[in-house]
Amino acid sequence: MEEKFSSLSDLGEFGLIEHLCRDFPLRQASSIKGIGDDAAILEFLSGRTVVSTDMLVEGVHFDLSYAPPQHLGYKAVAVNLSDIYAMNARPTQITVSIAVSNRFGIEYLDKIYEGIRHACEVFEVDLVGGDTTSSYSGLIISVTAIGTADEDQIVERSGAKENDLLVLSGDIGGAYMGLQVLEREKTVFQSNPDEQPDLSEYKYPIERQLKPEARKDIPELLEKLGVKPTAMIDVSDGLSSEALHISKSSNLGVRIYEEKIPIDPSVYKLCEEFKLSATTIALNGGEDYELLFTMPLEDHDKIKANPHLTVIGHMTEAAQGNMLVARDGAEVPLQAQGWNAMRDINKEV
Amino acid sequence: MEEKFSSLSDLGEFGLIEHLCRDFPLRQASSIKGIGDDAAILEFLSGRTVVSTDMLVEGVHFDLSYAPPQHLGYKAVAVNLSDIYAMNARPTQITVSIAVSNRFGIEYLDKIYEGIRHACEVFEVDLVGGDTTSSYSGLIISVTAIGTADEDQIVERSGAKENDLLVLSGDIGGAYMGLQVLEREKTVFQSNPDEQPDLSEYKYPIERQLKPEARKDIPELLEKLGVKPTAMIDVSDGLSSEALHISKSSNLGVRIYEEKIPIDPSVYKLCEEFKLSATTIALNGGEDYELLFTMPLEDHDKIKANPHLTVIGHMTEAAQGNMLVARDGAEVPLQAQGWNAMRDINKEV
Repeated sequence: MEEKFSSLSDLGEFGLIEHLCRDFPLRQASSIKGIGDDAAILEFLSGRTVVSTDMLVEGVHFDLSYAPPQHLGYKAVAVNLSDIYAMNARPTQITVSIAVSNRFGIEYLDKIYEGIRHACEVFEVDLVGGDTTSSYSGLIISVTAIGTADEDQIVERSGAKENDLLVLSGDIGGAYMGLQVLEREKTVFQSNPDEQPDLSEYKYPIERQLKPEARKDIPELLEKLGVKPTAMIDVSDGLSSEALHISKSSNLGVRIYEEKIPIDPSVYKLCEEFKLSATTIALNGGEDYELLFTMPLEDHDKIKANPHLTVIGHMTEAAQGNMLVARDGAEVPLQAQGWNAMRDINKEV
Repeated sequence: MEEKFSSLSDLGEFGLIEHLCRDFPLRQASSIKGIGDDAAILEFLSGRTVVSTDMLVEGVHFDLSYAPPQHLGYKAVAVNLSDIYAMNARPTQITVSIAVSNRFGIEYLDKIYEGIRHACEVFEVDLVGGDTTSSYSGLIISVTAIGTADEDQIVERSGAKENDLLVLSGDIGGAYMGLQVLEREKTVFQSNPDEQPDLSEYKYPIERQLKPEARKDIPELLEKLGVKPTAMIDVSDGLSSEALHISKSSNLGVRIYEEKIPIDPSVYKLCEEFKLSATTIALNGGEDYELLFTMPLEDHDKIKANPHLTVIGHMTEAAQGNMLVARDGAEVPLQAQGWNAMRDINKEV
């Protein structure tokens, strides 16, 4: 495995998979056999198994001119695991399929797999399968994540109750503003390649965009606090869109208080710089991969003052609709204008 | 759901998934919840779970100028289920992710999902998840298949024993020759669009290429016959390459007899027409999705004269190597020159 490969085709499909998937030890007891046969062999003898899948497409979900391949590999795994955590489950295995064109050498793919390997370590999941193929155009990464949970642990979107608190982990809007900075610097760089941008003051939002974290710690924290969410979802498409998923699935209304939405100071500052409303960005920006959940009002004391959790609103009866309560007390209907991979399709030539 | 959508972006990502995945009833007891939350919820309370994933890329795995979208959807599912059957397991669920460009209207995607739905019916699997995104280039379909089997039912590649029979289901070489016919007719059509080709005499090989079947019936048949394979693999990359996988994984040699390889008369005829060796095509053609397995010699009587199964060789000790025994008795080392999605990468411009 120490040979030097000049191109992907020298290695062949089997050799390439073997090469990329070496050094992926199996950590989970449920992983009986990983890569190397027609299918992986797993064992789930209790509870429920959850499965989620996502595809990242070059030019739609990432731009290789500023996304380092290690981060890309890490992100492809993290965004899938985020869906597993959003079920209040524990991820156990992933499969990764990649389509690449001749533009990419083996060294580049190695770096993507370095990021995948790092994510497997951090989130303690096993890479148990995958496919590698050529593509006549861009890079595409498709990940399927598998997880497990006891039947009574699983949290769906549909379980919210009237008067439940609406709670958000971390802060939001960063990933979107990080993307704005990266796009701006790309434009600057294209017109003046000698200028090296100083991005140090934008470190947080840029990292939120390029290397988002799945909130592995939140289900653990909630268990420790003795709080069981009634409904949960991850914030991939913007707070507004995700809150509407919960209220619709639960046949309720939702009320979000603008002043409560947690936004990092660096994101506020960037919004001013870009002349954008921080609230709009938080509601519609997406890609933050925080967890949004509902929980019984009577458990409020258990989470109060926890630095990872912010109560941003509550659930109401359906007739009251889905509302953003602005700082001045005005009520504005929430709309799903989340980041949408389909919206970009018309930009195509 | 009866509206008319002029473009994919009108519908949005959520609307599109909802639209495409309507009318997919859950049939499997292990499917607790399908599409509609962050992850599907499954329940496997006994035995083992097997997982396999494959990606089909336009221009590499299929050519839309002759692949009808219904067949494409069907094929994407069937080739993945083939891997599950090759474990001697029963497929239960699939997830499907699709990246599409603006070239495709909703009606086209509907036809792909018609094929996926048909495959779900035929193979009795549930569509439980997926992702739909735009792509700046071609059409990409990524499928993950999940299946189940008792622990002692599962058949890996590594279990073959010396003197085991090597057995193939169905016949091979058809899918490759079907592709040759389709490529030829495409060229003819391009130079003379008025000429309508008569493809009726090539029906069998063309169908093998465009709408391959996964051999659901073979594990069932073997169970009925009281035969348990010692090793099994599906023929996706050519007989030669698959036989080498079994012999390598099992630390054995293999011997295939040229005269025993089952090839359909229409495929022989096509090979003559194209001046190709039918044996070479059978060994390296690929994409037939038949099952290749080994079984104890003493069980030979149980499969003798079965029209679905052909003994094409046997396993030897590793020192005897991997050999094709030609019709004239000459021994030629088997080589893995199977169809290889990576080989095409250099054609790219």
